Amino acid sequence: MRASQYLIATLKETPADAEIISHQLMLRAGMIRRLAGGLYTWLPLGLRVLRKVERIVREEMDRSGAQEVLMPAIQPAELWQESGRWNEYGDELLRVKDRHERDFCYGPTHEEVITDIVRNELRSYRDLPANFYQIQTKFRDERRPRFGVMRSREFLMKDAYSFHVGPESLNETYQVMVETYSAIFRRLGLDFRAVEADSGAIGGSKSQEFHVLASSGEDAIAFSSESDYAANTELAEALPPKGERPAATETMQEVATPDQNTIDQVAGFLNTTPDRVLKTLLVHAPKKDENSSDQPLVALVLRGDHTLNDLKAEKLANVAEPLTMASDEDIRKTLGVDTGSIGPVGLKVPMVVDHAAAHLADFVCGANRTGYHLTGANWDRDVALGETADLREVEEGDPSPDGRGILEIRRGIEVGHVFKLGRKYSEAMNATVLDENGKAVAMEMGCYGIGVSRLVAAAIEQNHDDSGIIWPEAIAPFQVAIVTLNGHKSETVREAGEALYEQLTQSGYDVLLDDRKERPGVKFADLELIGIPHRVVISDRGIEAGTYEYKGRADEDKQDIPADDIPGFLAARVKAH
Amino acid sequence: MRASQYLIATLKETPADAEIISHQLMLRAGMIRRLAGGLYTWLPLGLRVLRKVERIVREEMDRSGAQEVLMPAIQPAELWQESGRWNEYGDELLRVKDRHERDFCYGPTHEEVITDIVRNELRSYRDLPANFYQIQTKFRDERRPRFGVMRSREFLMKDAYSFHVGPESLNETYQVMVETYSAIFRRLGLDFRAVEADSGAIGGSKSQEFHVLASSGEDAIAFSSESDYAANTELAEALPPKGERPAATETMQEVATPDQNTIDQVAGFLNTTPDRVLKTLLVHAPKKDENSSDQPLVALVLRGDHTLNDLKAEKLANVAEPLTMASDEDIRKTLGVDTGSIGPVGLKVPMVVDHAAAHLADFVCGANRTGYHLTGANWDRDVALGETADLREVEEGDPSPDGRGILEIRRGIEVGHVFKLGRKYSEAMNATVLDENGKAVAMEMGCYGIGVSRLVAAAIEQNHDDSGIIWPEAIAPFQVAIVTLNGHKSETVREAGEALYEQLTQSGYDVLLDDRKERPGVKFADLELIGIPHRVVISDRGIEAGTYEYKGRADEDKQDIPADDIPGFLAARVKAH
Repeated sequence: MRASQYLIATLKETPADAEIISHQLMLRAGMIRRLAGGLYTWLPLGLRVLRKVERIVREEMDRSGAQEVLMPAIQPAELWQESGRWNEYGDELLRVKDRHERDFCYGPTHEEVITDIVRNELRSYRDLPANFYQIQTKFRDERRPRFGVMRSREFLMKDAYSFHVGPESLNETYQVMVETYSAIFRRLGLDFRAVEADSGAIGGSKSQEFHVLASSGEDAIAFSSESDYAANTELAEALPPKGERPAATETMQEVATPDQNTIDQVAGFLNTTPDRVLKTLLVHAPKKDENSSDQPLVALVLRGDHTLNDLKAEKLANVAEPLTMASDEDIRKTLGVDTGSIGPVGLKVPMVVDHAAAHLADFVCGANRTGYHLTGANWDRDVALGETADLREVEEGDPSPDGRGILEIRRGIEVGHVFKLGRKYSEAMNATVLDENGKAVAMEMGCYGIGVSRLVAAAIEQNHDDSGIIWPEAIAPFQVAIVTLNGHKSETVREAGEALYEQLTQSGYDVLLDDRKERPGVKFADLELIGIPHRVVISDRGIEAGTYEYKGRADEDKQDIPADDIPGFLAARVKAH
Repeated sequence: MRASQYLIATLKETPADAEIISHQLMLRAGMIRRLAGGLYTWLPLGLRVLRKVERIVREEMDRSGAQEVLMPAIQPAELWQESGRWNEYGDELLRVKDRHERDFCYGPTHEEVITDIVRNELRSYRDLPANFYQIQTKFRDERRPRFGVMRSREFLMKDAYSFHVGPESLNETYQVMVETYSAIFRRLGLDFRAVEADSGAIGGSKSQEFHVLASSGEDAIAFSSESDYAANTELAEALPPKGERPAATETMQEVATPDQNTIDQVAGFLNTTPDRVLKTLLVHAPKKDENSSDQPLVALVLRGDHTLNDLKAEKLANVAEPLTMASDEDIRKTLGVDTGSIGPVGLKVPMVVDHAAAHLADFVCGANRTGYHLTGANWDRDVALGETADLREVEEGDPSPDGRGILEIRRGIEVGHVFKLGRKYSEAMNATVLDENGKAVAMEMGCYGIGVSRLVAAAIEQNHDDSGIIWPEAIAPFQVAIVTLNGHKSETVREAGEALYEQLTQSGYDVLLDDRKERPGVKFADLELIGIPHRVVISDRGIEAGTYEYKGRADEDKQDIPADDIPGFLAARVKAH
């Protein structure tokens, strides 16, 4: 492509409304433009990247044995009523009435449509397993679309749906999809993790998310230093400390701690550290009687330096869901004590103790007397331990739950999700096939999504520097840029540029020939912003010396290469993908 | 692809609701399935064809220098209000409100969005010309969607928009697009014509339609036997007959023609032919006074065997638009004669005579006396000729308007359209660039559409027989089918099939290995229905004789080919594209 005949719409200024780096760089590099909230046009340069991502996703899905289809974006309400989602799904579902006032929606996902197709087309266990996918524009009417194409309303998605007789077949295809996703993200050149996840609103029993690691990610991910274990920190198990609890050595004493209300304040006042202080949180327990206004409390006890994990707490039988903290007023009314002075010793409500807190000896805790704490307290000797559980968020350095290595925590951007749906849709929509015994059975289903447009933004979040984007080879809009210096004045330079451009294009490279009438500094800045991996500069001086100048996008230094060696040099540098 | 692992969803019965052959065959071959009125899912086999068409369109658009973009499907109402189309566009525009009750539409076309982008991104004549295209799912809420993907509500379209300073640049790009479209349809292997067309509702000055010729086409197209001339018959000019009008030889006589009301009846009764009888049609002329209820009449005179062309009549200054015929009652009231007996001689209303009618001598016409006609009438001698014009539909055998060859008439399916839009949108939306003198000028625009999904149906309308589809090579879902006879019983056959499948796939062919456990007849019928161009059958008997059986989809006969020669044989038969 010749830059003089191509829309290079770079911006010098960072747009004020772009909060995250990928959004800023996509606007500045001229990849996208905003049409309205959450709606973006892909300009030529951005679309080249999107199409390369799409192609890799398609090739790997085909290789996995999945069959590509294309379902309508607009779906009739009747199918969503059959599955129950017409009412369940909130305002994110864009509802539409056609000219005859019939109800439709712009599909955010296609479980209903594919289930309808499969129940009509497949009749026998012999037709299964089958896995259908599409790459399609979806719409979710986000309340607050933001971050450019990272969380837009219209977006390109790869969604796949598999159908099975029995859970074993589902397990197999699910595993094939996990491997396919890994192959896709590897080919894209991204650092990613497959993590255990909560399956959320789509329903079903098991799911994993695929995250691209980037400091700006919305999710925190814990993964092992030595194994494949990875999980959203919300779901990662904190193992109980190993070994016996240390023996008590101190005598329990009540000490005045006036105006010391937080863990840090108490620890500092008593000249100890937060990990030796207990934190006692009071939350609501389930009501004993639905109609009663009486809301019983339960205490959750953690080490002072640990953070309560709400999801873990909600799983406890004696904690009300959703988790709600008792108010200071409730606590004073029930226990006659200010919140900052609560502790396990002599506590009048039931209590669940986190494993790490249960492993402490000679700890500090509230004295259940306003303005006082206990020091040298010990489980069993001073207070019965009772129920223990995993209540806390994991932390960097915790042992990995699979027993291998320790946990690291990094932030991630969710770009893929694989679910086992089970029979949720097939039962609701009566999607059956005949099994080997001629009996109609509801099919097991899996579903597998990849945010294709989001992947472009995630790749940038992971790969950029102060000058702009640093594309992984496989998805760079162009692999090689040729810059002609003063090409509009020097015919020699112009001809050398054209000749190299033709040669490299013939060899199958995606080449951008920057033949614009711009100053060298403008061209270099644009190409670094756009992030083209390999740059070759042709100048009069270089031609005289018989060399062209090469610089890789991530390289510190440029180097002069004999002009004739450039094709061979590039062949060694440009990675096959 | 192995058929055993692929959705071959063929149907034996022709679905009752499918009116045209392409709709029937796409359903029967398992290419598409209906989700709701005008909404179709593309099954794997159909999508393969759609993607091949899409790829050819993209490659040729890229080659033309157009730049691919992707605009949002959902567009804000504000832009449509700026262009004026929010109110002009009828019920076909699917209007949508988002969760904040803001107005949007599902774009049926993207003039407003691209004009908005270009007015923001391009500033100078130096940035022009520019041509942007996208391949995208569109929605038009047809009142009566029908004929499958031929006239569906959701469809895949390639739309392109070019921007220029001045009409000359627009002319150049318009011509490039005409050539690009021709290249696309040639590569698709379709018999097509580029025809002059009325530009319709999108506005603008000049347009051409591209039609795939097929007997089921909605439009009649006249084209020259010897030149590139082609036009919708509505727009094709009928040249005046050459040479002088023959001299009068008969005497005019009034004859009784009781109960002879049609041209055919009169001609038969008077023992002549319709081409010697004049047809005098009374239509409304424009009112002289807007407020008057008086509606004057004007007579249009044609040869009895010719058909009035409404568009041509409407262009006459003394004919009211839209064209409306006078009622029998009006005619009796104004002229005192029954409709069947009207004629030019002594007629009391103004008259326009078609060129062919004006060239007759010794003709028959109504006598303006109920139940009577005149024979041997002649222009000038018996009645002044006055105004003549081209009023009739062209007919097969007419001379081509460009003076080269004669007209043939075939039916066509519109699959592409190129328009010169001029400054309609750029002026309404204030889309200007600075010209060479630094003056802001509104850009000239062109727009260029191809119905990508419709093309698939049109290709079938043109290429089928009683057994099914006969795909042009370039867009066949698979190029070659290998059928293994009794492969589930004979390991020799199975292995030979697998070996040939691997060999041909490695050579770059799209191959379907029909390894299903089905009877040979079922396989053959399915493959003919699906329309795969080349079929190789492997059987035990063939292997013994050292031959495989080959049959081209359109061939009468099958032939035995030495097994080893098959790759070379196919290389010669399968066209490169």
